[in-house]
Amino acid sequence: MSRMGWPRIRVAALSIIALFSFWISAATAQIDPLPSWNEGSVKQAIIAFVTAVAREGSPDFIPESDRIATFDNDGTLWIEQPIYVQFAFALDRVKTLAPQHPEWRDKQPFKAVLDGDMEAVAAMGEHGAVDIVAATHAGMTPDDFRTIAKEWLATAKHPRFGRRYDDLVYQPMLEVLAYMRANGFKTFIVSGGGIEFMRAFAPERYGIPSGQIVGSSIVTTFERRDGRPTLFRLPKVNFVDDGPGKPVGIDQHIGLRPVAAFGNSDGDLEMLQWTTETGGRRLGVVVHHTDAEREYAYDRDSKVGRLDKALDAAAQERWTVVDMKRDWKVIFPAEAR
Amino acid sequence: MSRMGWPRIRVAALSIIALFSFWISAATAQIDPLPSWNEGSVKQAIIAFVTAVAREGSPDFIPESDRIATFDNDGTLWIEQPIYVQFAFALDRVKTLAPQHPEWRDKQPFKAVLDGDMEAVAAMGEHGAVDIVAATHAGMTPDDFRTIAKEWLATAKHPRFGRRYDDLVYQPMLEVLAYMRANGFKTFIVSGGGIEFMRAFAPERYGIPSGQIVGSSIVTTFERRDGRPTLFRLPKVNFVDDGPGKPVGIDQHIGLRPVAAFGNSDGDLEMLQWTTETGGRRLGVVVHHTDAEREYAYDRDSKVGRLDKALDAAAQERWTVVDMKRDWKVIFPAEAR
Repeated sequence: MSRMGWPRIRVAALSIIALFSFWISAATAQIDPLPSWNEGSVKQAIIAFVTAVAREGSPDFIPESDRIATFDNDGTLWIEQPIYVQFAFALDRVKTLAPQHPEWRDKQPFKAVLDGDMEAVAAMGEHGAVDIVAATHAGMTPDDFRTIAKEWLATAKHPRFGRRYDDLVYQPMLEVLAYMRANGFKTFIVSGGGIEFMRAFAPERYGIPSGQIVGSSIVTTFERRDGRPTLFRLPKVNFVDDGPGKPVGIDQHIGLRPVAAFGNSDGDLEMLQWTTETGGRRLGVVVHHTDAEREYAYDRDSKVGRLDKALDAAAQERWTVVDMKRDWKVIFPAEAR
Repeated sequence: MSRMGWPRIRVAALSIIALFSFWISAATAQIDPLPSWNEGSVKQAIIAFVTAVAREGSPDFIPESDRIATFDNDGTLWIEQPIYVQFAFALDRVKTLAPQHPEWRDKQPFKAVLDGDMEAVAAMGEHGAVDIVAATHAGMTPDDFRTIAKEWLATAKHPRFGRRYDDLVYQPMLEVLAYMRANGFKTFIVSGGGIEFMRAFAPERYGIPSGQIVGSSIVTTFERRDGRPTLFRLPKVNFVDDGPGKPVGIDQHIGLRPVAAFGNSDGDLEMLQWTTETGGRRLGVVVHHTDAEREYAYDRDSKVGRLDKALDAAAQERWTVVDMKRDWKVIFPAEAR
């Protein structure tokens, strides 16, 4: 080091800095951050928002610590038709566990599940769902549950697309997540789905760590079992992170009001309102499933992912509505995991 | 750029790389990451752990995504004597609000608080505490509560040290937080204290964002008030993040088992067990308050921050016990905020 004189070091350093600046500006000029989005007002709205709030000196600048973006999961980041993925998991688990529960052959809602009578399952509503969740999601440690969910995700296939469920994530949304993170946003999932189920795939699939996943949960207790400290999942609802529960879950887990929120159904209405109905530049995005050919088309009358009030609110509150058919060049990642 | 030939760029680049390497190695050789810690086995244990798990190729290497470190707050990161800071806040709030509540003059536990009869307040136990929390922590939005807490912290002074409470954080622990983060750890607070109270100062004071604070909470609801989306704090306990609640809170918020945990009382026992009683290299640290002169000396018989079972467990489980008097060169930051 001492052999290099300061002037030479200085020249060298400046040359390198100039070189890097050139590379960086060349790169940013060329690279489209959202290549799977068709050009148009929606893509433009997302980029304009990110640029406006992340650029130092912009009138809409938001400091990095406040750049909180929340994303619903089912129907916003991955497929939710014909039934929620987690519900498909629960039904498969009932079938897997049935040999250990001969009584299920005559006991609802299990009988209906084993008979494949989905209409009967649906007719039992929330009550049936709670029994199924209790039988398939509780009575084990969180670690064991995550292992079971991972094993299922590695083998189960979507009935229409024949691909792993975690391959049926939306490529354009993966790009939004990466783009926002590259601009200093912290990305969170805020979903009605089970927090522990999402932890089985979301960290790896979306690049969102476990601690940034907010979801519904059942009660977990801590006790010593066989002399070892153990967490144990009980068949009792702890928190429902849906509708008005979403702003509450956000407050509990994040403690900051988001500045951008992405959803696709009425369950996201309150999160979108909480995010956007305030001073300052905000972004509310609703993914509208309009593509029956490449994915599904559904909104006001759908049993799963119903989008009715939130679609009206989107017009009124000037949220950005993604028309999947028009705005997305591709739906799913080309490559399998 | 094109004016520079490739050979010259290459030489310049290599020179700069060599220069930086020199600086970095010189810096690491010189800078003590824990300057407020006296040399000894405790300081050595912390540095040895961090080095062992963060160094690629080490047999104890832990990938960055799993480097989760949890810290109790009261008595571990800041002062907790003669009463918990949040309790001092609540008592002051009762006095501030008293003119609006003439009925408090004859109603317990408020009468005892207004009379300054701390023994009577203590005698009422949990029941009295719940009423005080309800009166001082609920009935407002989380934002309003945080503003009130911030204003109090900016003016209230510790009775013995005459300094702001958020100046009575432990300088050696601030260094541990920074040191661990510099080595790829994510630092979390896991405290029996109120999550919303901590959010009023912890992000700025400890460099720990709101979303990495786990604490006790009261129920919060979401509703529209005067046409605006509003969160509202209710006088009802939601979650107690203490003792066996700490591993549960960790599971809810973080979803990963910590590899390092710092505490100072029996309320941290289960968190320390949950962190260390597993395979792989782990770090459990107990701060033992042994310095009556510079701070306080208390353990087995203390009403606040009682350290009894966890001190026995520390010997048995070979946790690292900080002897404050012996191990800490300074207690509080020299400079005021």
